[in-house]
Amino acid sequence: MDRSHDPLPLGETGLFTDLYELTMAQAFFRQKMFAPATFSLFIRNYPPNRGYLVSAGLEDVLEYLERFQFSQADLSYLRSTEIFTEDFLDYLEGLRFTGSVRAIPEGRLYFANEPVLEVTGPIIEAQMVETFIINQVNLQTLLATKAARCVWAAQGRGVSDFSARRTQGTDAAMKMARCSYISGFQSTSNVLAARRYGIPPAGTMAHSFISSFPSEAEAFQAYAEAFPRRTILLLDTYDTIEGAWNAVQVAKKLAESGNRLLAVRLDSGDFDSLSRHVRRIFDEANLDYVRILASGGLDEHEVDRLVRDDAPIDLFGVGTKAGVSADAPWSDMAYKLVCYDGRPVMKLSPGKVNPPGTKQVFRFQDDGMFSRDILGLSDESVPGTEEMLVDVMTGGSPTAAKPDLVEIRERLESDMQRLDPRFKALNRPPLYPVQSSPKLQRLTATVQEQLGEPE
Amino acid sequence: MDRSHDPLPLGETGLFTDLYELTMAQAFFRQKMFAPATFSLFIRNYPPNRGYLVSAGLEDVLEYLERFQFSQADLSYLRSTEIFTEDFLDYLEGLRFTGSVRAIPEGRLYFANEPVLEVTGPIIEAQMVETFIINQVNLQTLLATKAARCVWAAQGRGVSDFSARRTQGTDAAMKMARCSYISGFQSTSNVLAARRYGIPPAGTMAHSFISSFPSEAEAFQAYAEAFPRRTILLLDTYDTIEGAWNAVQVAKKLAESGNRLLAVRLDSGDFDSLSRHVRRIFDEANLDYVRILASGGLDEHEVDRLVRDDAPIDLFGVGTKAGVSADAPWSDMAYKLVCYDGRPVMKLSPGKVNPPGTKQVFRFQDDGMFSRDILGLSDESVPGTEEMLVDVMTGGSPTAAKPDLVEIRERLESDMQRLDPRFKALNRPPLYPVQSSPKLQRLTATVQEQLGEPE
Repeated sequence: MDRSHDPLPLGETGLFTDLYELTMAQAFFRQKMFAPATFSLFIRNYPPNRGYLVSAGLEDVLEYLERFQFSQADLSYLRSTEIFTEDFLDYLEGLRFTGSVRAIPEGRLYFANEPVLEVTGPIIEAQMVETFIINQVNLQTLLATKAARCVWAAQGRGVSDFSARRTQGTDAAMKMARCSYISGFQSTSNVLAARRYGIPPAGTMAHSFISSFPSEAEAFQAYAEAFPRRTILLLDTYDTIEGAWNAVQVAKKLAESGNRLLAVRLDSGDFDSLSRHVRRIFDEANLDYVRILASGGLDEHEVDRLVRDDAPIDLFGVGTKAGVSADAPWSDMAYKLVCYDGRPVMKLSPGKVNPPGTKQVFRFQDDGMFSRDILGLSDESVPGTEEMLVDVMTGGSPTAAKPDLVEIRERLESDMQRLDPRFKALNRPPLYPVQSSPKLQRLTATVQEQLGEPE
Repeated sequence: MDRSHDPLPLGETGLFTDLYELTMAQAFFRQKMFAPATFSLFIRNYPPNRGYLVSAGLEDVLEYLERFQFSQADLSYLRSTEIFTEDFLDYLEGLRFTGSVRAIPEGRLYFANEPVLEVTGPIIEAQMVETFIINQVNLQTLLATKAARCVWAAQGRGVSDFSARRTQGTDAAMKMARCSYISGFQSTSNVLAARRYGIPPAGTMAHSFISSFPSEAEAFQAYAEAFPRRTILLLDTYDTIEGAWNAVQVAKKLAESGNRLLAVRLDSGDFDSLSRHVRRIFDEANLDYVRILASGGLDEHEVDRLVRDDAPIDLFGVGTKAGVSADAPWSDMAYKLVCYDGRPVMKLSPGKVNPPGTKQVFRFQDDGMFSRDILGLSDESVPGTEEMLVDVMTGGSPTAAKPDLVEIRERLESDMQRLDPRFKALNRPPLYPVQSSPKLQRLTATVQEQLGEPE
C-alpha cells in the first residue's frame, strides 16, 4: 500500500494527541476502568450557509486506528515529562486499538447532529484517539462540503483544484485534492496528491514563466514547442486582450502542425467581460475549440455568478478560498462519550447538551429523493429507511477493503441528485428535517432526570 | 536531528508541487534557460484587522530546500503521465537545490509588501520550490500573527494552545503549536509537538472523563489521586457552580496530604460572571492559590474583553479559532519573479503589480521604537537603519545552525515591544509606514515603461 504522505508517519500515531487524553488514560488505568465506551462524532451546528455535510476522512481514521501504537521514542518522551507512572507506560507499550467503528461511508451526505462515526472500545483506547479523529474528519468534511458547493455552482462546467500553495499546511493540501475529487472536481494541480490518490494532474503556466522571456510572444511560443498537444496559455501577465492576440498566433502555428491549443487562462480582472471578449477573439479567428479557463480568487459564489451570467468559461481553477473553506474554516465537530459500560451518558453544559446512547441514522426516501432522517438508537429499526451507519471496523480490523476513490465520488454524485435543490442553496438553505426517535427522546429525558438537570 | 513529522517525508519533496512548476521547468530545460532567477515572497494586502506580520516558517523552508530531490518513485510517476521527455526526467533525477536564500529571520515583525524571503538560483530550481515555500510561510505567518494577537490581548496572563483537534490537518496542528510558542503561548496540549519542538505540554481533563464515572465528585477524586500534584478539574460537565463546590472538596482533601489543587477549568457559559463566582467560592474556602483556566471558543477579541473587564481568569486555553486563524484563514502571499539573468522583471496584471528587482527592507528606529521601513533594492544602503533580510542559505546549504525556538520567541518579544501599540490594535490598526526608495521607484518606472504599461 502506498503510505506516502500519511498524515502521521508510523511511530507518531501515539503522540498526536492532547495531553489530557494520556492523563485521563492513566487515571482510568489506575481505577482499573477498562469497560467498553462508545464515543459519537458529530457536528452540532452547521457552519454558515451549509445545508448538508459530506462524509469524508474515514479512510485516514481507519488507517490510523490500525497503526495506532506508541514507539519507544514516544515512551521515552512521556517518561521524561515525569507525569506518568512506569506501570502505565508499560501498559501503553503494548496498547493497540482493538475496538470497533461504525460510520456513514465517505461520499454520503449527512446532517447536523447526526453521528458520522461511532467508536466503541475499552475506554482508554476509544478516548485516546479523539484528537486525530476529530482533526481529520472535521477537516475533510469541511473541504469536501466546500468543494461540493463549488461543483454545484459550476452546473456541469469543469472545476479543478489549484489550492496546494495556500492550504493550511501540507496535510490540508493533500486532503483538499482528495476531498475535492470526491466532490466532483476533475483534476488537481498537486502532483503528489495526483500520484497518491490517482487523480488527473492539471496545470498551465505562471506569470513568472512569461516574465522570464524577453516577450510574452516568445514565452508562449517556447511553451507550445515544449507541449504541442497540451498547451494552456496564461493571458494576463501584461494585458489580457493583447495576450489573447498573442495566443491566437500560437494557436495558428500549432494548427499548421496539426495540433490544437487546448485553452487560455484568465487570472485577474473582470472575468465576465474578459471571457466574452477573449471568446470573440478566438471565435472570429476560427479557433472555437480553444477553451477558456478562469482562476484567481474564485469560490462557489463567484462561480455561481459567472455561470448564471453565462460567461463563456469552460473550466474554473479554484484555489485558496476553497482550500481553506474560507467562509467556514472550522466547525464545532465533537467526539462525545455516549455510553460507558452499558450505561448511556451525556453532559449538560450550556449549549452543548448531546443525547446519550449508541445511535443510528435512519433515512427516508420519497420518490427517490431524501425526505427526512430519524436519529434513533442503534438497536432500533425503522421500516422503510436506509440505515446510514455501517460497520467499518471490528476488533481493530477494517471489515472491508478500502473503497476506490471513484466509488466514493459516485456515491456523492448519487446522494447529491437525491437531495432537493433547496438544501443545496449557497445562501441560507433551509434545515433538512432530522427528528429524534421517541425512544431516543425517552432515554434523553431519563438520563437528564438522573443527572439532576439544573433548573 | 529529529525528523519526526516533517511536513514532507524525504522522497516526497519533489512532487509536492503544482504540475505547472514541472511543465514550465521542462520548457525552460528545452530552451536551455539555466540562468539565475530571483523570486520574492511577500503579502500584498494585510488580512483583515492585521497591522503587522510575524515571520515564521523559514526553518521548514530551509530543511525542505536541503532535502529537495526526486525519488525513483517520483520519476516513475512522472513518466507514467506521458507529459515529460526522457532527457528532462534524467535531468530531474540529479536535481538538487543549489541556490541561495535571504530572509527576515523567524520571530521578526514584517509588513505588507515587504519580502520576507528571496530565493535566488537557476530558474528551474528557484521556480519549482514555489508551492511548498508559499504553503509553509503563508500558514506559519498567519498562525504566528494570530497567536501574537492573542498574547497581546492577554496582557501578561497565560495562554495555552488547545487547537490540535480542529486545525486544518496534522501539519497545521504541529505548526500552530510551534508558531504559538514563538508568539508567547506558554504551552501546548499537542504531545507530538511538545516532543518535537520542546514546548511544555499542558492538559486537564475532558467531559467524557467526568461522564464515565457515576458522579462528578468520584471523577474528580479519581483524577486527583492519580495526579496529586498536577490536577486541573473541569467544572461544567453538569453545572459549573456545583462543580466548583465539588472541586473545593477535592482541594481540601489534597491539602490534607500537603498537595495543592492547581486549577479549575471553565469551558462553557458566561466566563466573566462564572469566573467571579468560582473565584469567590475558592477564596472563601481559603483556596486562593487555585487558578482559574477558561477555554472554549476563545479568540483574541474574547480574551481582550475578559481582560479589560478584569475577569479573574489566570490562563486562557485557546483552540479552534486561533488554530485556523478563523477571521483570516488565508492571505494573498505570492512568490514572484523579480529578476531573471540580471534583468529586473515585473508583471502588470490588474491589482497584482509588484516592483522589480532583488530587494532589502531597511528599518528605522526612533528612541528604541520602530518608526518606518524603506523598501529598497538589495544593493542599496540606508544609513542608520537595520537591514532586515539576511543570508540564510548559500549554495544550497544553510549559513548557520538553526536557531533555538526560545531564541526566536525572544526576538518576537523584543520586536513587539518596539512596535507602537497603535499598530497592535485588534481592530483596524493604522498602516505601519513602508515607503519605496527613490531608486526602487525609478527602476519600477523604467521597467513599466519598457513593458509598455497599458493606458
